[in-house]
Amino acid sequence: MTVSDLGEHALLARILARLPRPGAQILVGPGDDAAVIEPGRNHRLVVTTDALVEDVHFSRAWCRPADIGRKALAVNLSDLAAMGATPRWALLSLAVPGALPVEDVEQLTEGLAALAQVHGVSVAGGNITRSPGGLVVDVTVGGEVASRRWLTRSGGHPGDELWVSGTVGAARAGLEMLVAGDAADASCIARHVRPEARVRLGIVVAKAQAARAAMDLSDGLADAVRKVAVASGCGALVSGEAVPVDPAARRWWERRGVDVLDSAVAGGEDYELLFAVPPRWGGRLRNVRRRVATPLITRIGVLTRDGGLWLERDGHRHSWPEGFEHFRG
Amino acid sequence: MTVSDLGEHALLARILARLPRPGAQILVGPGDDAAVIEPGRNHRLVVTTDALVEDVHFSRAWCRPADIGRKALAVNLSDLAAMGATPRWALLSLAVPGALPVEDVEQLTEGLAALAQVHGVSVAGGNITRSPGGLVVDVTVGGEVASRRWLTRSGGHPGDELWVSGTVGAARAGLEMLVAGDAADASCIARHVRPEARVRLGIVVAKAQAARAAMDLSDGLADAVRKVAVASGCGALVSGEAVPVDPAARRWWERRGVDVLDSAVAGGEDYELLFAVPPRWGGRLRNVRRRVATPLITRIGVLTRDGGLWLERDGHRHSWPEGFEHFRG
Repeated sequence: MTVSDLGEHALLARILARLPRPGAQILVGPGDDAAVIEPGRNHRLVVTTDALVEDVHFSRAWCRPADIGRKALAVNLSDLAAMGATPRWALLSLAVPGALPVEDVEQLTEGLAALAQVHGVSVAGGNITRSPGGLVVDVTVGGEVASRRWLTRSGGHPGDELWVSGTVGAARAGLEMLVAGDAADASCIARHVRPEARVRLGIVVAKAQAARAAMDLSDGLADAVRKVAVASGCGALVSGEAVPVDPAARRWWERRGVDVLDSAVAGGEDYELLFAVPPRWGGRLRNVRRRVATPLITRIGVLTRDGGLWLERDGHRHSWPEGFEHFRG
Repeated sequence: MTVSDLGEHALLARILARLPRPGAQILVGPGDDAAVIEPGRNHRLVVTTDALVEDVHFSRAWCRPADIGRKALAVNLSDLAAMGATPRWALLSLAVPGALPVEDVEQLTEGLAALAQVHGVSVAGGNITRSPGGLVVDVTVGGEVASRRWLTRSGGHPGDELWVSGTVGAARAGLEMLVAGDAADASCIARHVRPEARVRLGIVVAKAQAARAAMDLSDGLADAVRKVAVASGCGALVSGEAVPVDPAARRWWERRGVDVLDSAVAGGEDYELLFAVPPRWGGRLRNVRRRVATPLITRIGVLTRDGGLWLERDGHRHSWPEGFEHFRG
């Protein structure tokens, strides 16, 4: 059986089953947005790694090198944001085709470096190697979080409300526009090419203890709701009407006659944050919203005691859609 | 100009020139074997990242998946050893061709996990993505080192003796045997396929303050001597007769009529350690040798005040050979 036959989630399960039990220093091990490590007293190190692979995550036909470098850091910052951690340093590992123009590598570095400066992240080191295939940009980011303040996917309880930041669907719509060669909406395309990681929102939510679980929407809302619910041992009920579909993405899909909600919740790369919040913590969440004006946060549903995953629309309950699967399609 | 035209070292210089000055937390930034970070008082975090790329660093024709996973960790452990750091945790980032058998990914994980257990390293997390090209295994390792005890490439002074651990050349000879389809010596092939990182030696040397500079021989002795000398603002004079060429590699090259010393010092992937040691620290080094029986350490030369890099053989001084260059040849 090949990895394409098996699919990403099952492959990941097989990898995790083969890793030894992490040592006592590892407070949060494999399977969350990032790992939390306690290397010494009074220090909590949060680390994550994520790669952008040419012709899987980006095409050089429509991503400028600076945007590729920027995005390779942004997707990692998003993972740290989902843990409520403050990013501090990054390592850059590049596999570069020999025929790539030197200027492209320079601009890629500049794009990454510019975003690093915005967030006070030091590029501490890295590695460069030749690639006989396409360009691979693998970034590791390290940061810190206060003791017992990090957010995992598994912290949710039945009755917790599900809140999502910003809007969903724009990045997928933007990618569809690029593939179709139809630049219908610049904001959607920008969401695909230059995603924003919700660094400040994640930090403020964690510091304020305003959520019990969190995850980023790297693989879409459908995937994030499913993973937070399953990791928390809950079901979920989401109101389709409440999902904040990006207006331009909505217009794009309406024009093409496809189901707006299905496309929006399945679309990856929004890099918004999903939170599980007990109703009685509403005051804390309002404080967060006062301190972080953008993005908005919208209540979309609730974690439930039964294990079912449901999408409510037009007065009916539908099975919650499968998320995006790498290795498929 | 393409990256192949420019070459690895010049490309790296262009990347480094575009990175912002690292923040105060970064005690050793880009350009050494690993970065040293001070995330809080009384903690020194050492991190490095290194990738193995299919058909650049390994061929699936002659590397079993378990060996690929093992080696991807070993090369990172070697970087930490060169800093004198104790490895603690690792992140595994995989880019996997869809057609790869699932069993290969499982065995790769098991190979990495087994070496991680040997060194007490926890696999804390990672990432998996599809690769439209070959397999890419990118590992990040984090560890720790006592305050002011880490070893950099730049710490050497004129008059420091150069010492190298183990033997050199075997990994290159082993790779040549694999390419030639002539399994002339199993130990050389094993050095290429299953390299040992000198983890304990690096830690003991650093703790004993028995060296002023160190680097691992990932890209060969020629490269390491050059980089330590240049980073330390010194020249170097190495005695060809003193270089501990692996005996089986010597026989392989003698049989083929190629220059043994040239091949051995240019050959990469030995993963031995090079140290610069002031002569008056000889007692400390003898203590290290009592505590770490294998590998042996051999004095091969000296750092000099003038900037010249010389190889002495047959009573004559020759220019020190260029090291291995990725993107070339």
